[in-house]
Amino acid sequence: QKVGAFKFRGACNAVFSLSADELERGVVAHSSGNHAQALALAARLRGTRATIVMPENATAIKVAAVRDYGAEVVLCQPTQEAREGETARIVEETGASLIHPFNDSRIVAGQSTAAQELLEDVRELDSILAPVGGGGLLSGCALAAYYYSPATQVVGAEPAAADDAARSLEAGQILPARPPATIADGLLTSLGELTFAIIRDHVERIVTVDEAAIVEAMRAVWERMKILIEPSSAVPVAALLQGGLEVRGERVGVILSGGNVDLDRLPWQT
Amino acid sequence: QKVGAFKFRGACNAVFSLSADELERGVVAHSSGNHAQALALAARLRGTRATIVMPENATAIKVAAVRDYGAEVVLCQPTQEAREGETARIVEETGASLIHPFNDSRIVAGQSTAAQELLEDVRELDSILAPVGGGGLLSGCALAAYYYSPATQVVGAEPAAADDAARSLEAGQILPARPPATIADGLLTSLGELTFAIIRDHVERIVTVDEAAIVEAMRAVWERMKILIEPSSAVPVAALLQGGLEVRGERVGVILSGGNVDLDRLPWQT
Repeated sequence: QKVGAFKFRGACNAVFSLSADELERGVVAHSSGNHAQALALAARLRGTRATIVMPENATAIKVAAVRDYGAEVVLCQPTQEAREGETARIVEETGASLIHPFNDSRIVAGQSTAAQELLEDVRELDSILAPVGGGGLLSGCALAAYYYSPATQVVGAEPAAADDAARSLEAGQILPARPPATIADGLLTSLGELTFAIIRDHVERIVTVDEAAIVEAMRAVWERMKILIEPSSAVPVAALLQGGLEVRGERVGVILSGGNVDLDRLPWQT
Repeated sequence: QKVGAFKFRGACNAVFSLSADELERGVVAHSSGNHAQALALAARLRGTRATIVMPENATAIKVAAVRDYGAEVVLCQPTQEAREGETARIVEETGASLIHPFNDSRIVAGQSTAAQELLEDVRELDSILAPVGGGGLLSGCALAAYYYSPATQVVGAEPAAADDAARSLEAGQILPARPPATIADGLLTSLGELTFAIIRDHVERIVTVDEAAIVEAMRAVWERMKILIEPSSAVPVAALLQGGLEVRGERVGVILSGGNVDLDRLPWQT
């Protein structure tokens, strides 16, 4: 998986869906995560420009990675307001297309290919587990199952310390994320209007897991499967291992969403 | 790959080649590495007993892993003489079959399946790179290429700090390993009579790499491919990255031999 995370699927689909006119004007996003790199690479592959708004306290390595993929990085104050303001200014000045990291049907469609490919490879799954942050991956997987394998239940997994999706579904409305307190740093975002609606209609339930279970699941996948996954990817694995799901004897697919880890500091090392 | 290393291929083939009579009497080996676990699991799968002679200074975690696979562990003094003596005593007393970790045609045949499967998956390789320690994997790969894809050259890779295979081939006779000074702890052994002869006749050349290149290659595979490999596995990757091979534009296969790493202590961490 290019850029080491599922985000490339959505970014690619979004950029490759643009018209010739739109491609002339480039794309823009504010992101300090995998979406930034994914969008930068997708833009380069499509021969258009990407501008990524990043907070000025983003680590140098993340800024360098985005630039390495050929994007222009614009630094701003590290507040949500500054990021959105700067992005809006660029859209207005350049006419670039804003590519939201998850609340965009082209992004959701792109992420859906993860579950689609899984269902093509291993048919007749009883359920598919995927992590949920902003909900792009989970809503895409739910739609893919709905279309390609209606009998497959899709279950979301999120850290108990960032359980806004579970609480939002229960409340019937989008609740904001609480201050981040989880190692699964890809899952801090709240749902968007689009992803909330899809998840509400097509996802069976959301399971929450504690921090220790996330680290244990991450280490178990490294040790037993020899696959390097990041903490966010370990969340659905933790949901399985922690045992809150009644799936014994069933065929369960798990989406491992990404493997971008700081190899100098592993979560099980003090 | 069960037990996290190619060793399971050879151990399985050796154990599953035994007659009913031999299976009655079990198998024995002296090993503190992956062969011990591989043989233990192969024996359990075949319904026979495995006895593994291990030096009493082997780490508790390695002894426990072998016992977890159902083998009996016999501890001995940490010298080559004590290990061989204890193993011979067990063979004499029990009639168990000694399964050498590499100098055994059943083992070589088992390891050869790594290259065989690679050639089935991706045809028309110009060359295949594999690490060389005792030479079981390398000689097996060379035979697989010889039979299934004669145009494919097989190249061995070993640490410059444990270059006994390169020196042995040059000298035309088996030279002993020097005192171990490499992070690639799976590649410390000298060649055996059998593996030396196969490698001499069927391997194009042996490339040596320095320690820094091994660590760099290991980290590169972790970061870019998200595959957890151990230092010994990184040796052929290092041979490619260090640039001593003239393979630009060619189709090169690399055998990643194992992924058993102490996740609490990574080689790039001080």
